[in-house]
Amino acid sequence: MIKAGIVGGTGYTGVELLRLLAGHPRVELVTVTSRGDAGRRVDELYPSLRGHVPGCFSEPSIEALTGCDVAFFATPNGTAMRMAEPLLAAGVRIIDLAADFRLRDPAEWERWYGEPHACPQRLPQAVYGLPEVNRAAIREARLVANPGCYPTAVQLGFLPLLEAGLVDTGRLIADAKSGTSGAGRRAEIPMLLSETGESFKAYGVAGHRHLPEIRQGLERAAGGAVSLTFVPHLLPMIRGIHATLYAELAGDPGDLAALYEARYRGEPFVDVLPFGSHPDTRSVRGSNRCQIALHRPQGGSTVVVLSVIDNLVKGAAGQAVQNMNLMFGLAETAGLDAIALYP
Amino acid sequence: MIKAGIVGGTGYTGVELLRLLAGHPRVELVTVTSRGDAGRRVDELYPSLRGHVPGCFSEPSIEALTGCDVAFFATPNGTAMRMAEPLLAAGVRIIDLAADFRLRDPAEWERWYGEPHACPQRLPQAVYGLPEVNRAAIREARLVANPGCYPTAVQLGFLPLLEAGLVDTGRLIADAKSGTSGAGRRAEIPMLLSETGESFKAYGVAGHRHLPEIRQGLERAAGGAVSLTFVPHLLPMIRGIHATLYAELAGDPGDLAALYEARYRGEPFVDVLPFGSHPDTRSVRGSNRCQIALHRPQGGSTVVVLSVIDNLVKGAAGQAVQNMNLMFGLAETAGLDAIALYP
Amino acid sequence: MIKAGIVGGTGYTGVELLRLLAGHPRVELVTVTSRGDAGRRVDELYPSLRGHVPGCFSEPSIEALTGCDVAFFATPNGTAMRMAEPLLAAGVRIIDLAADFRLRDPAEWERWYGEPHACPQRLPQAVYGLPEVNRAAIREARLVANPGCYPTAVQLGFLPLLEAGLVDTGRLIADAKSGTSGAGRRAEIPMLLSETGESFKAYGVAGHRHLPEIRQGLERAAGGAVSLTFVPHLLPMIRGIHATLYAELAGDPGDLAALYEARYRGEPFVDVLPFGSHPDTRSVRGSNRCQIALHRPQGGSTVVVLSVIDNLVKGAAGQAVQNMNLMFGLAETAGLDAIALYP
Amino acid sequence: MIKAGIVGGTGYTGVELLRLLAGHPRVELVTVTSRGDAGRRVDELYPSLRGHVPGCFSEPSIEALTGCDVAFFATPNGTAMRMAEPLLAAGVRIIDLAADFRLRDPAEWERWYGEPHACPQRLPQAVYGLPEVNRAAIREARLVANPGCYPTAVQLGFLPLLEAGLVDTGRLIADAKSGTSGAGRRAEIPMLLSETGESFKAYGVAGHRHLPEIRQGLERAAGGAVSLTFVPHLLPMIRGIHATLYAELAGDPGDLAALYEARYRGEPFVDVLPFGSHPDTRSVRGSNRCQIALHRPQGGSTVVVLSVIDNLVKGAAGQAVQNMNLMFGLAETAGLDAIALYP
Repeated sequence: MIKAGIVGGTGYTGVELLRLLAGHPRVELVTVTSRGDAGRRVDELYPSLRGHVPGCFSEPSIEALTGCDVAFFATPNGTAMRMAEPLLAAGVRIIDLAADFRLRDPAEWERWYGEPHACPQRLPQAVYGLPEVNRAAIREARLVANPGCYPTAVQLGFLPLLEAGLVDTGRLIADAKSGTSGAGRRAEIPMLLSETGESFKAYGVAGHRHLPEIRQGLERAAGGAVSLTFVPHLLPMIRGIHATLYAELAGDPGDLAALYEARYRGEPFVDVLPFGSHPDTRSVRGSNRCQIALHRPQGGSTVVVLSVIDNLVKGAAGQAVQNMNLMFGLAETAGLDAIALYP
Repeated sequence: MIKAGIVGGTGYTGVELLRLLAGHPRVELVTVTSRGDAGRRVDELYPSLRGHVPGCFSEPSIEALTGCDVAFFATPNGTAMRMAEPLLAAGVRIIDLAADFRLRDPAEWERWYGEPHACPQRLPQAVYGLPEVNRAAIREARLVANPGCYPTAVQLGFLPLLEAGLVDTGRLIADAKSGTSGAGRRAEIPMLLSETGESFKAYGVAGHRHLPEIRQGLERAAGGAVSLTFVPHLLPMIRGIHATLYAELAGDPGDLAALYEARYRGEPFVDVLPFGSHPDTRSVRGSNRCQIALHRPQGGSTVVVLSVIDNLVKGAAGQAVQNMNLMFGLAETAGLDAIALYP
Repeated sequence: MIKAGIVGGTGYTGVELLRLLAGHPRVELVTVTSRGDAGRRVDELYPSLRGHVPGCFSEPSIEALTGCDVAFFATPNGTAMRMAEPLLAAGVRIIDLAADFRLRDPAEWERWYGEPHACPQRLPQAVYGLPEVNRAAIREARLVANPGCYPTAVQLGFLPLLEAGLVDTGRLIADAKSGTSGAGRRAEIPMLLSETGESFKAYGVAGHRHLPEIRQGLERAAGGAVSLTFVPHLLPMIRGIHATLYAELAGDPGDLAALYEARYRGEPFVDVLPFGSHPDTRSVRGSNRCQIALHRPQGGSTVVVLSVIDNLVKGAAGQAVQNMNLMFGLAETAGLDAIALYP
Repeated sequence: MIKAGIVGGTGYTGVELLRLLAGHPRVELVTVTSRGDAGRRVDELYPSLRGHVPGCFSEPSIEALTGCDVAFFATPNGTAMRMAEPLLAAGVRIIDLAADFRLRDPAEWERWYGEPHACPQRLPQAVYGLPEVNRAAIREARLVANPGCYPTAVQLGFLPLLEAGLVDTGRLIADAKSGTSGAGRRAEIPMLLSETGESFKAYGVAGHRHLPEIRQGLERAAGGAVSLTFVPHLLPMIRGIHATLYAELAGDPGDLAALYEARYRGEPFVDVLPFGSHPDTRSVRGSNRCQIALHRPQGGSTVVVLSVIDNLVKGAAGQAVQNMNLMFGLAETAGLDAIALYP
């Protein structure tokens, strides 16, 4: 059994990790920390976990975590980079679900996150945990930067086009929509049901922190600079991301459907729907799947890619477990075979 | 492997059965019928099932079903009672998720369902599939009447009080609230999001078909006549039933919490919360669990029981699988260990 | 024009008052205060008010308010009772939308609100602002205690039965459900869409602060002691209260429908639906109306009353404007004739 | 008083017309027709209208309508074009809220609506009822084609850019999201709360009927051909459209904010928010307003316009009333001054 610890178990990615790891056949939960709720029973805060996760939240400590094979950081940005060094030195593998190790360039990190990076020396060995791109490296990794939710949906949607060099990289558009759980379990007025229910809005149009992460990934795929307009929106629902992606074809693209099917053949968690389909977020709710469909309206030069995930699963905790499976040589789908909850 | 067939696979209880049975370690899905969608791929209608449920819906036929060990009827009321006889004669066990075999008295059935019962000769051997009451009988049953969603939540909430004779059976009140999936996957204006979203209402106050079913169960528990006022309401959400139950104590009840804990000790799917808790439907969403909490406001003579289930799981498909597990000698929890999807 | 001031303009009752008073033909908004947002443009916080409410929030001050004919307190409990004395002395009439002046007995207030009442000397002249009960007194009042949202829905539903002495006052039950806006515009985790969306729960079963207020009103109507079990629930939607009321008939009640129609004949904001109807909250959303329907399931001894209001209108700001209209001799419906927003 | 008739009063645009016209100071509702509900009380179907709209639905007939000054068609596509001729001949002015008279080219109409146009002789005199473009012509019109909901939001967002010739008209993108009420009050499974609640999807990407209407309007504004990619999506909520518009600047655009403010100065129902704002649909819910905000992410060459309306008001019934006001020389805002319902 793999001994796992969760740092920051009270947020939505934390509780989703608890759900997935409690049902994982090869994992033993050793410690779940929470600065604010230490000493409190986990299943008192989350009655859904009664009978599945015994015990209490503990204070976060390096000591307790060094007994783990792997530590998941489900913490706010800036926590993992302060605790990583001693854990890595002690041989604990780390999967950070926050942004600390996602950007390769510490200057870029500082620009978007407003403080110097606290652990730049580990950035070179951090592996960006998108298995569909980095599977081999993840298998060997000791420090995995789990991708953001928007970046997962957008990259998986754009990658085949960019890798094949089929589109104008100077004008990519990602119009993305997320459920409220993406904002985390934080007491903020704009996230009240009274505020976000029965309403819809864009936010962060001037510049969202996921922009540099997405751009970094797209540039890697394109092998060069990419210009991306990224507009996130807030949906009046809890789980799900829908990315609507627009690109201009640079010429005759051939059979786009075949391209995507070939690119994702064998991928356990990327499902290319028939050309012209309209994926809905409910069909991936609670599952680790990304469903993608392609359109070319009126046969013109614009290709539209629709990409949906559950932001808490493939966009966070599920992908983290997928990465853990790879890091420890388990079946990649272990503990991740749940079917989406519909309706 | 147990060979299972589903009759009526396109409704919500049908697709929920598909989700649960596709993930069940001891079940092989042999046939899924649909009168309206025969010939259509199952996963075209339900993209969440892609890769999990291959094949197409077929026309319902006795022939195809006689190859099954068990046939689940996820059909409208009145279907199972017309197909049961030949299937039972052929040795196929039946679990009916509709109401055909729930009422012991065919005259009562006719009164509430508006037509004579088509299979009264099988009523005596039909077992009401509430494992917390009828476990032993279910193990031997060849024909199980799976309880309704409201009846499951209300009976589990009231049973300990009635069995112990602690309350006035002349004035029981069940104020129950259900998500829209309880109304099924039918094209009806009142069930549109534009109609039921952001709104709340009672319905069927004059008399809901679940009333005689609940009353029958409560009278069995009380060992005598029971007077119940049952008011169902429609919630602006998809899954979940919350029953708020009111009863007048007939005297000093002793330790009510201990009573409930003792009654449900060892029950895998009934979870009694600490006295004074407020269960929420989200904590059982997607799981087969019933969570129950007790209150005695201001220490008075009224006891309030709060009982929540997922109407499609413990209130329908999950309970049906639980019954199947019992009928075939499997672990009662096989295929039913999923943790609720929160948030 | 009546000069009106709003104290605490940034909560939901405050912004609803702004909406109603901005459209009122006889009111001039003189000042809108907010401790936290003083100096900020009102329409920056609430873009729906652009062009309708010019100006900024100001610091609350007795001075600014003494220029008003009437001051509305849309503040947390405990504010109005500290500012009432000098305003009343200066001739400003007060309508308090919080609880400070609702309970006649200061000891009872202290028991439920956890501190001594700061202005007990004014309690005797405070008029409980339920026009359907106290219209004449409200016309003369200088200090009106605007009823709570639950108390409005529950009292209007029960009053005719109690005034006519038709039911057993020893076992009244009010099973009430409210949208999230009733909890106010406060940053609290349980009110996040991620928490309350797609879920339902009871709360405060042990004792909600609206219980003594409701009981006081029912006892006044019954002319004696009343025993009430009050269970509030939280709905996954924004606006609306639905009270489901249960009472035991003490004998032959005669024509209940006629009783209610007679009691509320001429009431501009209480609408008795045909016997056996099921009112829904959407049909009163945004309007100042209470819709009520009666049921007597199976012709038995239990009468069920269904009562719906918009908690922010008839349950708060609309009723406050109705009270103001009465206090200043205006048409009772002035500024309150909006039709509910359906769908 | 203007005598108004509504043809097709039972759909959502019909009932919204009823709400607005019942509160209009200069309108007398003469007849409300419904083929399916003729003879039924209007307020039985819509309890929100009790006391506001007396009388019953009647059978649609030319005779009854010829007594009106104006007839609103809130009917499915294809109805108004069959009834227009005799009504116009009788001097009745027509406002069609469906698509029959929106496209100037009957061949284009046939292509998108699948049947020949039944009244092509009246197309030349039909005026497209977008007051911000056609105010003078609407004042003189006898036949107004009320714009579609998406077309209203998209055109108002794009117009200033196109009229000023600032953007590349070869690659406009409109990513639009609508609440479910836009699909009408029709019994269809995909519109059930159980289907669209807690989910999000695109639809009609291959070609939505609003595409030619939008393109026609944009080409008029641009004075030449326009290439538009239009992707509509379905939101899990009832009212509201949010259009996110993308255009490539053809050069230095100067002060975009000033451009929009100048273009819409004096417009009673178009509200340009400060540059960089994020309008939300709730702030226009129930009002006839369009709120627009501009962004230029990272100061690049892509301009992003955010445009929100209530699809049933400015996107349908409200705009129809605005057109009526113009046609009859009333104040343009008469009956349309309601403030949005927030929260």
